[in-house]
Amino acid sequence: MSGSTFGTLFRLTTFGESHGVGVGVVIDGCPAGLPLAPEELQHDLDRRRVGQSHMTSARQEGDRVQILSGIFEGYTTGTPIMLQVLNENARPQDYDAIKELYRPGHADHTWEAKFGRRDYRGGGRASARETIGRVAAGAVARKLLRTVGVEVIGYTLQLMHLRAQVIDEAEIERNPMRCPDPNIAPAMVALVEQARRELDSLGGIVELRARGVPPGWGEPVFDKLDADLAKAMLSIPAVKGFEIGDGFAVANLRGSQNNDPYTEVEERITTSSNHAGGVLGGISTGEELIVRIAAKPPASIARTQQTVSRSGQSAVIAVKGRHDPTVLPRLVPVAEAMMLLVLADHWLRQRAARV
Amino acid sequence: MSGSTFGTLFRLTTFGESHGVGVGVVIDGCPAGLPLAPEELQHDLDRRRVGQSHMTSARQEGDRVQILSGIFEGYTTGTPIMLQVLNENARPQDYDAIKELYRPGHADHTWEAKFGRRDYRGGGRASARETIGRVAAGAVARKLLRTVGVEVIGYTLQLMHLRAQVIDEAEIERNPMRCPDPNIAPAMVALVEQARRELDSLGGIVELRARGVPPGWGEPVFDKLDADLAKAMLSIPAVKGFEIGDGFAVANLRGSQNNDPYTEVEERITTSSNHAGGVLGGISTGEELIVRIAAKPPASIARTQQTVSRSGQSAVIAVKGRHDPTVLPRLVPVAEAMMLLVLADHWLRQRAARV
Amino acid sequence: MSGSTFGTLFRLTTFGESHGVGVGVVIDGCPAGLPLAPEELQHDLDRRRVGQSHMTSARQEGDRVQILSGIFEGYTTGTPIMLQVLNENARPQDYDAIKELYRPGHADHTWEAKFGRRDYRGGGRASARETIGRVAAGAVARKLLRTVGVEVIGYTLQLMHLRAQVIDEAEIERNPMRCPDPNIAPAMVALVEQARRELDSLGGIVELRARGVPPGWGEPVFDKLDADLAKAMLSIPAVKGFEIGDGFAVANLRGSQNNDPYTEVEERITTSSNHAGGVLGGISTGEELIVRIAAKPPASIARTQQTVSRSGQSAVIAVKGRHDPTVLPRLVPVAEAMMLLVLADHWLRQRAARV
Amino acid sequence: MSGSTFGTLFRLTTFGESHGVGVGVVIDGCPAGLPLAPEELQHDLDRRRVGQSHMTSARQEGDRVQILSGIFEGYTTGTPIMLQVLNENARPQDYDAIKELYRPGHADHTWEAKFGRRDYRGGGRASARETIGRVAAGAVARKLLRTVGVEVIGYTLQLMHLRAQVIDEAEIERNPMRCPDPNIAPAMVALVEQARRELDSLGGIVELRARGVPPGWGEPVFDKLDADLAKAMLSIPAVKGFEIGDGFAVANLRGSQNNDPYTEVEERITTSSNHAGGVLGGISTGEELIVRIAAKPPASIARTQQTVSRSGQSAVIAVKGRHDPTVLPRLVPVAEAMMLLVLADHWLRQRAARV
Repeated sequence: MSGSTFGTLFRLTTFGESHGVGVGVVIDGCPAGLPLAPEELQHDLDRRRVGQSHMTSARQEGDRVQILSGIFEGYTTGTPIMLQVLNENARPQDYDAIKELYRPGHADHTWEAKFGRRDYRGGGRASARETIGRVAAGAVARKLLRTVGVEVIGYTLQLMHLRAQVIDEAEIERNPMRCPDPNIAPAMVALVEQARRELDSLGGIVELRARGVPPGWGEPVFDKLDADLAKAMLSIPAVKGFEIGDGFAVANLRGSQNNDPYTEVEERITTSSNHAGGVLGGISTGEELIVRIAAKPPASIARTQQTVSRSGQSAVIAVKGRHDPTVLPRLVPVAEAMMLLVLADHWLRQRAARV
Repeated sequence: MSGSTFGTLFRLTTFGESHGVGVGVVIDGCPAGLPLAPEELQHDLDRRRVGQSHMTSARQEGDRVQILSGIFEGYTTGTPIMLQVLNENARPQDYDAIKELYRPGHADHTWEAKFGRRDYRGGGRASARETIGRVAAGAVARKLLRTVGVEVIGYTLQLMHLRAQVIDEAEIERNPMRCPDPNIAPAMVALVEQARRELDSLGGIVELRARGVPPGWGEPVFDKLDADLAKAMLSIPAVKGFEIGDGFAVANLRGSQNNDPYTEVEERITTSSNHAGGVLGGISTGEELIVRIAAKPPASIARTQQTVSRSGQSAVIAVKGRHDPTVLPRLVPVAEAMMLLVLADHWLRQRAARV
Repeated sequence: MSGSTFGTLFRLTTFGESHGVGVGVVIDGCPAGLPLAPEELQHDLDRRRVGQSHMTSARQEGDRVQILSGIFEGYTTGTPIMLQVLNENARPQDYDAIKELYRPGHADHTWEAKFGRRDYRGGGRASARETIGRVAAGAVARKLLRTVGVEVIGYTLQLMHLRAQVIDEAEIERNPMRCPDPNIAPAMVALVEQARRELDSLGGIVELRARGVPPGWGEPVFDKLDADLAKAMLSIPAVKGFEIGDGFAVANLRGSQNNDPYTEVEERITTSSNHAGGVLGGISTGEELIVRIAAKPPASIARTQQTVSRSGQSAVIAVKGRHDPTVLPRLVPVAEAMMLLVLADHWLRQRAARV
Repeated sequence: MSGSTFGTLFRLTTFGESHGVGVGVVIDGCPAGLPLAPEELQHDLDRRRVGQSHMTSARQEGDRVQILSGIFEGYTTGTPIMLQVLNENARPQDYDAIKELYRPGHADHTWEAKFGRRDYRGGGRASARETIGRVAAGAVARKLLRTVGVEVIGYTLQLMHLRAQVIDEAEIERNPMRCPDPNIAPAMVALVEQARRELDSLGGIVELRARGVPPGWGEPVFDKLDADLAKAMLSIPAVKGFEIGDGFAVANLRGSQNNDPYTEVEERITTSSNHAGGVLGGISTGEELIVRIAAKPPASIARTQQTVSRSGQSAVIAVKGRHDPTVLPRLVPVAEAMMLLVLADHWLRQRAARV
């Protein structure tokens, strides 16, 4: 199968290119009977949208979601939910200058190697705009998971050397970096502004948490909950690393440090620490799910770089246009969406686990 | 679908519990016409096998692979290849003492939460023994990929604070840690021995490299090559983190540092650095694939730990039996297998990419 | 997974309800590099469209297909192809009268039993209008298969007691019944007119043929070519039976009659008869594929019928509105589409069969 | 994906060749907590087994099923259930004479066209012996479905011109033809004996019924219950046609005859007839499921037939060995198994249909 479908029971297929007619998603497998209003979908799309601040690129679009099917009289019907956003503000001519050059760090060369051709307008399908379908579907998953008390949040944990020291969730949506530490957020903003002036871009880390996931979700041995989360996160543009719980830090831990002792609190079996990050053996433990992902600095920088043309000629390139010096604030809702999609799918799959 | 199947076109389904009758795998989708001898499969299984040294646990088994189907007159026929290993040396009585207790860091509690019951003998299916089927299938994938010049190697990069400084591939199979640095390997061995005496276990990092992968493999936007690798790696017991190329280090890089400039060498388009680790936009670049995974210290330690019983009573537990203080040397062939399986699948998928 | 996705490598997901905003399809896995123009898709949609004659229902819509993604500069790019048709002429108020009654022979009751609710407007997703996405995707498959010389045709073989005696393919599109026998077609037309006057509907049989399929397509043991064709056909509304080659007539044949003897003609191995209908062991033989499907008389009849209401009260119902006395002429392009989709998928799958 | 896996949530993968080491199946997705004993699996395998009477071929094998995994302390654990039967009585030398010739009506030529080679011993994987894995998995599905009151039965409805006039279920297992009509069964037996003497074989029809299926199972628009049943049935060797309810007879019916009027009996909505055969819109109605399949006369006949060799030389062939003049009695348990597998899968899928 080709690769634009994700999930087993809660299943989405995205479509669309950056500067084509539109982008969107078909969700097949959303249970019937979920109340769902357009504005509930729009909220997460607005969080993902560009042009919110100096932090993110200047393209102005409403990104108004249209619902074409699957909802009737305010409820999901069990049939495919089709959500689309038309590309109102496409400026494909911006890209004519670079259609013969491979941008370093971009997928121009690899897509062409794969398919023998590419839609060079704004990266075509290898554009962050592709994530609109994910976020729209994630908003449906969010609504669905709330019916069983599951919530997902994400935030910018780190931008270059700046790392949040406290996690104040109320702070996240108050600053353009979506940083949960009010003392660090201004420095992050300043660093982004500086990078923009220097025609450069910055890497960082996003952290995600899911609460309310009961023990028992995840399908070993291959479709483990953490394995599906890892795939979900690495499928997002710019993500280069994934870890759960203590993650790479376990490389320096002993078993006596890393094992989470069991205890019982109010008749619920729990652990007194959570090094595991909410998963053991690929199945949720009932503790908080904690995931971190590393995002590379955006490849589009206005600074001159060395490259070659499609015919192999040496060339220099400076990527003009509307580009973010960091993906982090916009990555947050996209990564949340992917986590929500994995959880919604595994919730439904768990329904088949027992006689 | 339940979770014991992996891959789209080169597709395996594993089965078996640690102390049941046997473990194995059915591979469906291996192309016809591949020459394949039993000893070629046995080689990787022997690398995975326990009892090779003081580094790994003391269980003695031949792990002789049996081929039940799919090979005729020395060649694959295109039909399912069934490979199994009988459990010759099972000692389920070892586990009677702990069948009512949840071992910290193990999947006892989560499997029970999922299915309402568990096979408590040696962890049942949540045992490292489950990986035999992966390694057997990986050996088939290795043979298949060699027909197009792709090779995969893995090694122990790091054990606790000890990190290989040089990568001498000839050294890997010469020391029990599968460490490529002959100067570091002895210290790693000593650290493992010390942990064993201290009834404790150790974490670490394995690095994997794939060479010869041509540009063009990977299926955006969800089945990206790195996304499928991430899932494959996180599906392995004990793995808590995945990164590709510079991985988490990109969080501290600027775009001008992280982008790999294109150049042309001998009429082949290449990059003068490989921060990306061989993937851009989820598609192979033609450069070396470089992946690292973090492995937690094994949960089975003989030291006393706090836990609860199935009925919620507070208890202490010390996990006796044949257990490794580190999974690293045995993780290497398992992780290689998972990388090989992903690559074999994407090679076949790429055949459908163009008219 | 939910059930609106079809195919393994050439893979479509349809969406949309009869009287919602629109209907359509996302095709994922169409190889890159196929030249494709909108009018090539429109042709088959026009063949499926209502209102072409007295034979079919009176709803007037352009059914103009819009391409939202996946095609660039006249060629497929390898990314998802999204095709949609907006519902321009929906009259949901037509259905208010029957929203509380279950129409006999329709899916009103079963959809409600499944999902707890239903979109009662024109049958919602259980409407023939859902097949627009199939036909649009089938048109892409038709273009793709032509690159390897495969052609598919269909026609009305039988309407009630009237059965075509000769198969003159040039005749098919010349009469409103798509009957290949010019001597029988007028009687079929008359029978349909009579049924309309009598407020009743008629059953029949469609036959399909595929030419140019090389030997070797089909994936035993479950995804046999004939098994996938059977599923494809039974997934079409109103189809109640499927047969290939001699089909149910084999029940009365002996092996000495039914076996097709092999012979060699012009260095090609062929058979001197084709009782098998082009498939042996689930794999194409290289001979013509011949399939027949039985279509029930449309359930919507204006005659009074006995039924019950949603609350279980006895009631009578007469289904008013724009309804065909026969589905046959419109079933032809839909069934062709499903056959084309199966063949396109198996062509791509066959590329992975050998080293 | 290759074609030896069937089902979405209740999912089986079969393996094995007729004269290899063994045949079997891995079932992934059977819910945990189902009590299951080996003899419950053996019962259906014995019904499928050869050598029961003069009706079926003379190969003598115990076909003893071995359970390798997935069952612990008498209950399914939720992990893959691996079931295998070793080939104890293989006589591959029987087939040396024909390894260079294509047997008419067999898959020798098509498998070779597909894979470039074939295991010619007894048809390799294209042997009825492959169905052992289906029947073993079907026995698990039968046990599972009984927990919700679903039962499936099958019988020989027709052999050539002989058709059962009454359906006395108690009679089915009393005669070697599995014919439910005690008056017709002896004539069927005599006809088979005559065909054996004449070195010929006979076609026929099997009918299947499922009771207790509640309304609501089936996943439109592609994975309709009847569509999945059609695929399941056509995947069985020798099956050339499928119909549900009135099937091909609907071609001669009017809507006023074919529609099943709704009525209410004891507070349950039902229909006063069942032309639909228990499915409307691809979803179960709650009425009995009624399916018929057409089986061709076995291709292996000892009579001389015209064929060609692998190199294209004209030749004659007479297929010697242990062959049935009819598949019907052994087809019954295989077809029941496939129906059970479809129903078990759709039961689990239905659990995800509503919030």
